[in-house]
Amino acid sequence: MGKGNMKIDARNFKGTRDYLPNEMILRNQMIEKIRRSFEVFGFVPLETPALEYLDVLTGKYGEEGDKLIYRLNYKGGSVAGMKYDLTVPLARVMTQHNDIVLPFKRYQIQPVWRADRPQVRQGRFREFYQCDADIVGVKSVLADTEIIALIHNILSQLEIGQFLIRINHRKILSGIRESLGLKEAMEIDLCRGIDKLDKIGIDGVKEELGRLGFTDPVMDNLFQLLSLEGSHTEVFKQLKDTLTKSETGLQGIDELKNIFESLEIMNIPMEALKIDLHLARGLDYYTGTIYESSSIDLPHIGSLTGGGRYDRLIGSFGSKDLPAVGTTIGLDRIATVLTQLGKMADKNSVTQILVTIFDETMIHQSMKIASSLRKHGFKTELYYEPVKLKKQFSYADKQKIPFVIVLGPDETAKGQVTLKDLTVGKQQQLDSGTLISYLEDRLSE
Amino acid sequence: MGKGNMKIDARNFKGTRDYLPNEMILRNQMIEKIRRSFEVFGFVPLETPALEYLDVLTGKYGEEGDKLIYRLNYKGGSVAGMKYDLTVPLARVMTQHNDIVLPFKRYQIQPVWRADRPQVRQGRFREFYQCDADIVGVKSVLADTEIIALIHNILSQLEIGQFLIRINHRKILSGIRESLGLKEAMEIDLCRGIDKLDKIGIDGVKEELGRLGFTDPVMDNLFQLLSLEGSHTEVFKQLKDTLTKSETGLQGIDELKNIFESLEIMNIPMEALKIDLHLARGLDYYTGTIYESSSIDLPHIGSLTGGGRYDRLIGSFGSKDLPAVGTTIGLDRIATVLTQLGKMADKNSVTQILVTIFDETMIHQSMKIASSLRKHGFKTELYYEPVKLKKQFSYADKQKIPFVIVLGPDETAKGQVTLKDLTVGKQQQLDSGTLISYLEDRLSE
Repeated sequence: MGKGNMKIDARNFKGTRDYLPNEMILRNQMIEKIRRSFEVFGFVPLETPALEYLDVLTGKYGEEGDKLIYRLNYKGGSVAGMKYDLTVPLARVMTQHNDIVLPFKRYQIQPVWRADRPQVRQGRFREFYQCDADIVGVKSVLADTEIIALIHNILSQLEIGQFLIRINHRKILSGIRESLGLKEAMEIDLCRGIDKLDKIGIDGVKEELGRLGFTDPVMDNLFQLLSLEGSHTEVFKQLKDTLTKSETGLQGIDELKNIFESLEIMNIPMEALKIDLHLARGLDYYTGTIYESSSIDLPHIGSLTGGGRYDRLIGSFGSKDLPAVGTTIGLDRIATVLTQLGKMADKNSVTQILVTIFDETMIHQSMKIASSLRKHGFKTELYYEPVKLKKQFSYADKQKIPFVIVLGPDETAKGQVTLKDLTVGKQQQLDSGTLISYLEDRLSE
Repeated sequence: MGKGNMKIDARNFKGTRDYLPNEMILRNQMIEKIRRSFEVFGFVPLETPALEYLDVLTGKYGEEGDKLIYRLNYKGGSVAGMKYDLTVPLARVMTQHNDIVLPFKRYQIQPVWRADRPQVRQGRFREFYQCDADIVGVKSVLADTEIIALIHNILSQLEIGQFLIRINHRKILSGIRESLGLKEAMEIDLCRGIDKLDKIGIDGVKEELGRLGFTDPVMDNLFQLLSLEGSHTEVFKQLKDTLTKSETGLQGIDELKNIFESLEIMNIPMEALKIDLHLARGLDYYTGTIYESSSIDLPHIGSLTGGGRYDRLIGSFGSKDLPAVGTTIGLDRIATVLTQLGKMADKNSVTQILVTIFDETMIHQSMKIASSLRKHGFKTELYYEPVKLKKQFSYADKQKIPFVIVLGPDETAKGQVTLKDLTVGKQQQLDSGTLISYLEDRLSE
């Protein structure tokens, strides 16, 4: 078969993308910091396969969600699909491996898939990463507190600038629903409506809720309640006065108070936290605390993290009761924030030193130096062809490699190398011993 | 819908597996070291999606290979599938992003999928990781040399004990074919036959080659040639004498000699390298050097790495000529070696310190200590319930957490904590300042 026959349009499957080195370098740095935070809080890594049996995947995301599961063409039918999120696989793992010691604090950083109409410009892909941390097996709000402290730790470590963690409680929303005289069955509509405030505005939400049977006076009351503002102590006080008759509501307030006290004890600055009664999170499965966070300077980028307590989902595969609380860290959005803040150098290379090849006769000398630099842990590239030095320097320039070493017969005769610092355009001759200590000094982080 | 209705058999899709924390901790340590080696050699990370258009994937692996591609049920037909390896996606990327600066030295650590009959006991899965490093755009054997130096570096860093990198050259095999008077068309059969020596033995290979038209005298000659043994200088000398009439063969010998000389210059110990004429590698696409490596103490585990030069594959999507050389690092097999050598602690936790909760009144004190330990970078867990200390200690024991901190009213009154070292069963009271420096001392790596 001739080469011409094989020519194929080289393109990505729609809604997927490559992470080229400039993006991967940034992502790896981020993931390393996030992983470090997870482990400092005692979380352990887990990975589950991309492929799952369809009966494991379906029935958890609602009819609309099930349609978004990619199914395999397998033995003439569909028995397997690609995972939709990291939560259902966690539920499967907890039931299947029932010797897992509780509390199980796991983190998981893997891609998930959605058979969706992709909107690449808006950042909606068919294949994207999720980065989750969850604590399974703990009812106590101490676990919720730790998840919020973890989020604060991660966003601080990533140096994304000022951020705000907004916190609410499904039980407070229940209390509000009760105080409005609405039946329990209307709670999901209420939450979904509130969740859309950011997107469609107060009039849009009123219209939607109106269609679902919410009367005007009820909605006026609702939006008045949600507009409670102030420090968390003030909000708690006002809420307590309003929700006096709702046992559930008061319980939610108590839990949040407890959490805020504990976070203060843990030295989390209170200005990074806010009670936000408008926060509802659309998903049905939350049962307690809910929280999201966003950049203060770049709020339009949207939620950088999101999570809460969901006490009934993880145990649903088996017979055990497995309360759980956790968060997702939005890798892609955080990368956007860092890029827009100019905090991330756009680099195609991680190399610190390029060792050039002066001519054919000097190849072995250059290899020796490269080996020695690598032995000392320097990220070192050897140029692979004895072409003109100008071309070799131009490669270092394109790749933003800060140091270039030249090793000609003159240098070798003196037992030295020429080191050029491209960041300042200076060059000097050094002997090999001094070279290492000079570079250690200049390249230490 | 009642909970009973949702009960589902929690199980993995056949041929896939979960990586539970004990395995993930080991894998992450390995990957971190491998990534470090890649970057010290100037390689940069790349990731490509799981999903690719079928025309991109098919036609590269032969008919048998194409059958092993998982296809999606998508809009009533199959337009997309799951990637089969990391090489074809690299070829697509090189054509699609034609502004990539050459040489392109990329590493890629991602899962691939095969719609195969899985043999889980033999370690054959439908979903498994590949870990590849390749240099694209360099014809010079300097690149081959660097890949072999990289393999040596990685296996040394991973501390897998003694290992052997076996090296051969497709051009030497061509020379052998020529010297046996066989036509070029028989070369692939020859390579595939040699490649099976390990699996089916010399008689099995003779039978297969016989069926393909190889005569007995030819095969006797072949096996005599392949049995050349000795140091690489001896083997080179004998080969040169035998392949005098084959220009291709002599070129292969020269290239390998050059590579061995350079590796010696780079301080790679010669006893870790071996010319192995029996090494052929079954894949059709190799055009130059080929190499595999294995543990000397545990040879039955098989190849730990494998690779070579393939100058025609990467450019085949477009019109550019893109020579390439690279290697796969076999993560799973290396993990098996490390486990069998007892070099890997089987741990379910990375936590260094468990902070217990003495009773309800002491929760905030314990949180303070946990926060302070985390601020100093210690991997710290806080117990989430003020249950009996015995139960909290038993958790630390199960999770193999080395240090436990107890903080009761007595300790608090004195401004101290009790630190118990579970590895030696000793406990002492320390004040917070001393605690940090003591732990830094004990837990420094």
